[in-house]
Amino acid sequence: MINDNYSKLPGAYLFSDIARKVQSFKASDPGAEVISLGIGDVTQPLAPAVVEALHRAADEMAIAATFRGYGPERGYDFLREAIVRHDFHERGIDIQPDEIFVSDGAKSDTGNFQELLSKDVRIAVTDPVYPVYVDSNVMGGRAGTLGADGRWSNVHYLPCTAENDFVPDLPNEHVDVIYLCYPNNPTGTTLTRDQLQRWVDYALDKNILLFYDAAYEAYIQSEDVPHSIYELQGAKCCAVEFHSYSKTAGFTGIRCGYTVVPKELRLPLNPMWNRRQTTKFNGTSYLSQRAAEAIYSLEGKEQIQATIHYYMENARLMREALTSTGFQVYGGINAPYLWVRTPDRMTSWEFFDHLLKKAHVVSTPGSGFGPSGEGYIRLTAFGDRTQTTEALSRIKSLNL
Amino acid sequence: MINDNYSKLPGAYLFSDIARKVQSFKASDPGAEVISLGIGDVTQPLAPAVVEALHRAADEMAIAATFRGYGPERGYDFLREAIVRHDFHERGIDIQPDEIFVSDGAKSDTGNFQELLSKDVRIAVTDPVYPVYVDSNVMGGRAGTLGADGRWSNVHYLPCTAENDFVPDLPNEHVDVIYLCYPNNPTGTTLTRDQLQRWVDYALDKNILLFYDAAYEAYIQSEDVPHSIYELQGAKCCAVEFHSYSKTAGFTGIRCGYTVVPKELRLPLNPMWNRRQTTKFNGTSYLSQRAAEAIYSLEGKEQIQATIHYYMENARLMREALTSTGFQVYGGINAPYLWVRTPDRMTSWEFFDHLLKKAHVVSTPGSGFGPSGEGYIRLTAFGDRTQTTEALSRIKSLNL
Repeated sequence: MINDNYSKLPGAYLFSDIARKVQSFKASDPGAEVISLGIGDVTQPLAPAVVEALHRAADEMAIAATFRGYGPERGYDFLREAIVRHDFHERGIDIQPDEIFVSDGAKSDTGNFQELLSKDVRIAVTDPVYPVYVDSNVMGGRAGTLGADGRWSNVHYLPCTAENDFVPDLPNEHVDVIYLCYPNNPTGTTLTRDQLQRWVDYALDKNILLFYDAAYEAYIQSEDVPHSIYELQGAKCCAVEFHSYSKTAGFTGIRCGYTVVPKELRLPLNPMWNRRQTTKFNGTSYLSQRAAEAIYSLEGKEQIQATIHYYMENARLMREALTSTGFQVYGGINAPYLWVRTPDRMTSWEFFDHLLKKAHVVSTPGSGFGPSGEGYIRLTAFGDRTQTTEALSRIKSLNL
Repeated sequence: MINDNYSKLPGAYLFSDIARKVQSFKASDPGAEVISLGIGDVTQPLAPAVVEALHRAADEMAIAATFRGYGPERGYDFLREAIVRHDFHERGIDIQPDEIFVSDGAKSDTGNFQELLSKDVRIAVTDPVYPVYVDSNVMGGRAGTLGADGRWSNVHYLPCTAENDFVPDLPNEHVDVIYLCYPNNPTGTTLTRDQLQRWVDYALDKNILLFYDAAYEAYIQSEDVPHSIYELQGAKCCAVEFHSYSKTAGFTGIRCGYTVVPKELRLPLNPMWNRRQTTKFNGTSYLSQRAAEAIYSLEGKEQIQATIHYYMENARLMREALTSTGFQVYGGINAPYLWVRTPDRMTSWEFFDHLLKKAHVVSTPGSGFGPSGEGYIRLTAFGDRTQTTEALSRIKSLNL
């Protein structure tokens, strides 16, 4: 009577596992001052323009004349128009408001979107990978069985390691869907425009659907790294793109994001996603949508850039400190994530435990993101500056 | 490559269809003052205690010391504890905080919960019914094919009409899951404690899972109508219960609700739902959760009761006016919905069109809720008083 695919999933969601480990460590050593560079959660407050928008929206809800109930299916026009203008038209990309679906975040959308596909599609993921892509397909019955090597039998893995400079090879067998996330979670690495065009060309040639997760695009600093897959020729015929304000503007507690489903796609995913969302979703909070709109104002843009700069300065300090300590460090240039090789051939979880017990620093074990993540940990630049530098000096003094 | 079940769904989501019809009428007659008694959306502003809570929460998000990022998986403790205390313990029901899953609303939860079930479970629904229950199972591949009679071949229908006083008979064939919604959407009718106990006993006896939608419980006025299915003996072993603040406190634009998944259920749905939500959902806004908490304060409780009283006074006026005009009217006593027989054997859509064109009043065609809804329309008491009484006098003057 129950969906047996759930029983195939090993343990809990990665970040729930980590939270439990940290809680139990804190219980055993109540005096320890634990610093988290683990889960990708932000620490800096919302931009003043966003806070003002929240207050204004709350006031609107307080009187009948301006009260808002259910919002429009795809999100409010004011937000979808701001998105189209600032995230696409200003970059020379032609996306229309009816191709934008506002949601409560990219986790929901990347998790739910596979529902539109049949059970027998074969998916490919870069490895390591954000667990939601794989787990949602396990629940959907598409992953097959989990092997002793940590790979699902029906999922095609595209390894990304230091050996290939974190640039995956094109699949060497037939797949229907490829999940790509750039700037990458967890490795913090990117693809250049030329490198990504190869994937779009390949998808068009082989009739593959690309799920492109752009949750970290706001952290891009380099000119040759695309902010949207639609910067590339032909992408509107083969790619769905997921956006989130969680990291762009510290919205992890506010909940707002959006998904772009072009009408030019070869599959009728635009009307299907609309049907899915109107049937099983009722929009994200009006306040959250007004908050998101405020990010696109002149002050809002400046304010969120200042916070992004703050985090990227953390990333720079972390790269510097860890590299000078002898660690092999990747990412952290166009992304808030650093991907660090474990020392002394420790496994990811061994190094996680070591850092937690000896430095009271929480990391994320790379192996939690897939087999090719073994031997790495992920650190995030989302900490507060003082805590981040304190964590770095503790790691340095471990003499690893 | 795509999920073919989507192509089985006829047309769009009911309320999208209605919105389109209304829009096209307004375009053809721009002078008409259209009053909506159709979609179940509230019109009265948020309670002052709720607005205050939103402002306080926005201020917390403005400084690093009180900023909140990702919330706890099942929702904030402050909210789950308030829920357990006020909605359950005060009614003598033993529900624990780890059986509560806070969400962005009952539409998402009632739509997504079927994912936990295998493809071959047989579902039963009362007819007429909230379209989400059926449509989400169509998308999930459980409904079979749609017959000319408007019934899905694999769904068992439990007719609720004036003929059986809107009290459905127990299924006369094997089913695995029964969706019940009381106070009922769309008919506005209820089951007494004794009547509902029969369903719980039947479910326990036949090993059936009950999905109980209590979204309208705040409107209950009668002593013998249960607010929660867990008031009844044995329900914690067989029932999942869905709650929403949308109608309780005008949260249709705020987005917050919760689902109760007891640990005593015969199936491991509590850990499964936790796995589902941690994988594909990231909680509802912190502001929305603080807003929901405020409903349980002393002032909050009084304020939302005043609004519920306002809507129920609308319902009383509507019942009175329509009955005195000769309509057969059901519901509207323990629910904000009135279920009205169409006059002159009109179909639901004929009477919908008639009311729209002649009285400029938007209703919801009963047939949109299922075959047994044919020959009825649903009217809602969520209007503003002046508009509601204006709509009533227009309907009266139609001389139907």
